[in-house]
Amino acid sequence: MLVQKYKDMLSGKSVIRQLSEFATARGKEIGYENVFDYSLGNPSVPVPQTFTNEMMKLLTTRESSVLHGYSPSLGITSVREAVAASLERRFGLPYRREHIFMASGAAGALAHAFRLVTEPGDEVLCFAPFFPEYRPYVDLTGAVLKVVPPDTESFQINFEAFEAMLSQKVMAVLINTPNNPSGVVYSRETLARLADVLKRKSAEYGHTIYLISDEPYREIVFEGVDAPCVSQFYDNTIMCYSFSKSLSLPGERIGYVAVNPACEDAEDMVNMCGQISRGIGHNCPPSLIQLAVAETLELTADLKVYETNMKLLYEKLVKLGFTCVKPGGTFYIFPRALEEDAKAFCDKALKYDLVLVPGDTFGAPGFFRMAYCIETEKVERSLAALERFVEENYSRG
Amino acid sequence: MLVQKYKDMLSGKSVIRQLSEFATARGKEIGYENVFDYSLGNPSVPVPQTFTNEMMKLLTTRESSVLHGYSPSLGITSVREAVAASLERRFGLPYRREHIFMASGAAGALAHAFRLVTEPGDEVLCFAPFFPEYRPYVDLTGAVLKVVPPDTESFQINFEAFEAMLSQKVMAVLINTPNNPSGVVYSRETLARLADVLKRKSAEYGHTIYLISDEPYREIVFEGVDAPCVSQFYDNTIMCYSFSKSLSLPGERIGYVAVNPACEDAEDMVNMCGQISRGIGHNCPPSLIQLAVAETLELTADLKVYETNMKLLYEKLVKLGFTCVKPGGTFYIFPRALEEDAKAFCDKALKYDLVLVPGDTFGAPGFFRMAYCIETEKVERSLAALERFVEENYSRG
Repeated sequence: MLVQKYKDMLSGKSVIRQLSEFATARGKEIGYENVFDYSLGNPSVPVPQTFTNEMMKLLTTRESSVLHGYSPSLGITSVREAVAASLERRFGLPYRREHIFMASGAAGALAHAFRLVTEPGDEVLCFAPFFPEYRPYVDLTGAVLKVVPPDTESFQINFEAFEAMLSQKVMAVLINTPNNPSGVVYSRETLARLADVLKRKSAEYGHTIYLISDEPYREIVFEGVDAPCVSQFYDNTIMCYSFSKSLSLPGERIGYVAVNPACEDAEDMVNMCGQISRGIGHNCPPSLIQLAVAETLELTADLKVYETNMKLLYEKLVKLGFTCVKPGGTFYIFPRALEEDAKAFCDKALKYDLVLVPGDTFGAPGFFRMAYCIETEKVERSLAALERFVEENYSRG
Repeated sequence: MLVQKYKDMLSGKSVIRQLSEFATARGKEIGYENVFDYSLGNPSVPVPQTFTNEMMKLLTTRESSVLHGYSPSLGITSVREAVAASLERRFGLPYRREHIFMASGAAGALAHAFRLVTEPGDEVLCFAPFFPEYRPYVDLTGAVLKVVPPDTESFQINFEAFEAMLSQKVMAVLINTPNNPSGVVYSRETLARLADVLKRKSAEYGHTIYLISDEPYREIVFEGVDAPCVSQFYDNTIMCYSFSKSLSLPGERIGYVAVNPACEDAEDMVNMCGQISRGIGHNCPPSLIQLAVAETLELTADLKVYETNMKLLYEKLVKLGFTCVKPGGTFYIFPRALEEDAKAFCDKALKYDLVLVPGDTFGAPGFFRMAYCIETEKVERSLAALERFVEENYSRG
């Protein structure tokens, strides 16, 4: 018999994917350049040439059976060392190879982090608005994801709601800053207060509440924005990183888990990741890609376009009367819809070939997400459509 | 609190890995060329130049943000189509894209297969001798792996023991042909009889017993050996394939699940794999590597060396008085040790710098494995050591 829980999932289709498919289909009718597709968070800028050169160099200079040979289950030693050295240099924490586990993207990293610290029935808290894939990521481990309602003024943490939801069953708290879908970066004040609560509650419950920090947007931070390193605030932090966004290679599935060196049992935790891998068929990211990212750790794709796009959209949205927290990073913006039902709002927008995603999907009804990882020229053209959409549907005149 | 089951696993170290580490350490003392390291099943022949050329071509001709972009969760469509067409051409079953799920190596493929058809508490049967990683692969899903004792005469299936172990709780049977560690290829007779038992028992229990066929050694079959396609014998077969051995790139983590087109719910099963991925952080093998293997599907590395090595070893072993089933493929051979305790036997061999793995690890005490994926020149030099080892320890004179 096929396992029912996976069979049941087949009928539920992701709203984001449905919208993206709509955009593709509509593109076939009117030309994709005329569809203002803000649905998918797929990096649009080229991969740095240095990365490609590094791959070519590896392919032409290394002995093939070594280059493509098995990686140790924790990752290639020299790669783990390079990642640790880079993190230490940038964030001032004494990372060593022993704290690094190479993983297949952020999804792979999170799959290990959840299994490190939760058993079936345990709870993981995250904060709305949140990346909807967190739901299957956690629930399919047997643990339970609970979502703390948003602070809709700032999209920082709603601490009152958070404290009310903490309990003896909560083993981990999951955060994502810079945030998908809000684009907001958690402030020092937010992170310090979060750490205080976690320390206090860990002591009260007699067990560590781990902080799992999902950081795929760490390198996409806009000018003048302070993006503090989460691990500096709380010892028991498990950082989950992906190179997907910073190097524009989401298809290559490369990232890592970095356990805070100050975390109790940090080394054991990394070794345990190697055991977890055996149960989930992980077995390391590809050797070739590990070796290539090790040479480009402090490099990023040319990410400026995201800030350019953000400014264009933010200014226009404000001018049109939207309430909107200004993004500090990522390639997302998350304004309040102009009617209570964001789904109805986004449905109407489709008539203007504006593909927006209702906030319900992210645990924040009444808002909508725009993923502006598209050409600036298209963003510019979309502004007129946005204006017409608002005027024809929500103008008070 | 860290999850105890993974913490507990840290103390148990794989025998194969321990022996491999011994070989490396001994190599530092006497030169690795003087250690006859038969411990690890790591392909030793170069990757085909065509594969490398294909990678270079992709890197130089494709737009980088598309090349390295997200793969659909079931795999890149054109790649799935190419795999299906190749399987159809070779094995005559009507495979289509809908039957193919691209996975991160055989480990990734198996992780999906087990979750498709077993719930916690269900049983999976496999046949000794077996690849020891099957134990954590299955047990960490919550299902239970049970091992059918070997037919030590032929290393085909011990049907009497198998039938005795089948029960209402058995949801899947896992086979591996050509086999690690025995090198044996299951005959048509074995596969036909296996299919008969599975059909009969499925009807008796009122649920399908799926056949999970782990086929990483499919392309390493020696001259004159008939290696039948498992899926041709039983409709409810889930084929798990890896390119690791055929193309010599175990580090690149690329393989697939191919559900038999005749399998009930075949399409649903592939779609379910996409859901399973969300829970285990799988998210597809790397785009670049998917695209490169699609161009080299019916190509292999130059695998002749394995047969050359097998012949050298088999002849010598027989001459020295070993009982040994002649391998039909793979790069393993699995003779009976010359004393009952294969561990003691392998310990003594270490004094001759012969690194052999006791069969206990594979569920077949009294035997030992030699992984002859090493240079032929080294195999030749090892024969004298083997002879001295036998003469000085087991000679009747």
